[in-house]
Amino acid sequence: MIGRLNHVAIAVPDLAAASAQYRDTLGARVGAPQDEPDHGVTVVFIELPNTKIELLHPLGEDSPIKGFLDKNPSGGIHHMCFEVEDILAARDKLQAEGARVLGGAEPKIGAHGKPVLFLHPKDFNGCLIELEQV
Amino acid sequence: MIGRLNHVAIAVPDLAAASAQYRDTLGARVGAPQDEPDHGVTVVFIELPNTKIELLHPLGEDSPIKGFLDKNPSGGIHHMCFEVEDILAARDKLQAEGARVLGGAEPKIGAHGKPVLFLHPKDFNGCLIELEQV
Repeated sequence: MIGRLNHVAIAVPDLAAASAQYRDTLGARVGAPQDEPDHGVTVVFIELPNTKIELLHPLGEDSPIKGFLDKNPSGGIHHMCFEVEDILAARDKLQAEGARVLGGAEPKIGAHGKPVLFLHPKDFNGCLIELEQV
Repeated sequence: MIGRLNHVAIAVPDLAAASAQYRDTLGARVGAPQDEPDHGVTVVFIELPNTKIELLHPLGEDSPIKGFLDKNPSGGIHHMCFEVEDILAARDKLQAEGARVLGGAEPKIGAHGKPVLFLHPKDFNGCLIELEQV
């Protein structure tokens, strides 16, 4: 069911510093910051040859990653995103096998403009998993 | 400098259960467990179309992931591994820019039989980064 690893998302306390570090110290291809007000984050995409890293920084008062950074002030790996062909079929299979979908079971439109769902970390070895329909 | 994302490593408390979940619930291609006594882990590789997930479980008394699982009993994302062409050149550049290499600066032979280094999470947004020469 799961396909490519679309991205690994890293919550960072200082987006400019983290971007500079990936660009200058690690020598990666780093994009410009993009505000995503509907998702409460500013995102910087890092293009690797086979996948992407997303740097996430809170935007606004209700950012979903504020709590994570409160608990992990240095930042940390926040989630990983797997691609699926049919997000409703994936959801139905996962729920039938007892996995919990976060925030209601209807897919939302994610930061890439595509339908996404998040799965409960307690059901997946402590890892927050995003599924994105591609 | 950094190239492909070689893998994302997930520490798991129950390797058989996690393997079955990735195979049966998430529908991924999951390999057989491999003991790596030199590294204190048993590893299961999950082959995605563009990269790998490595499930890690402690092996022996001095496993480097025992402390992580003590702190995160459900498991969690332990590290991510970027490929580099020349690990000594990468190390020298990183150290010159103030990044700390864990466990001494000499590359060790990693679980894939290739030279690896680990970078200090506090220098990289709370993320443990492995570099592997390919």
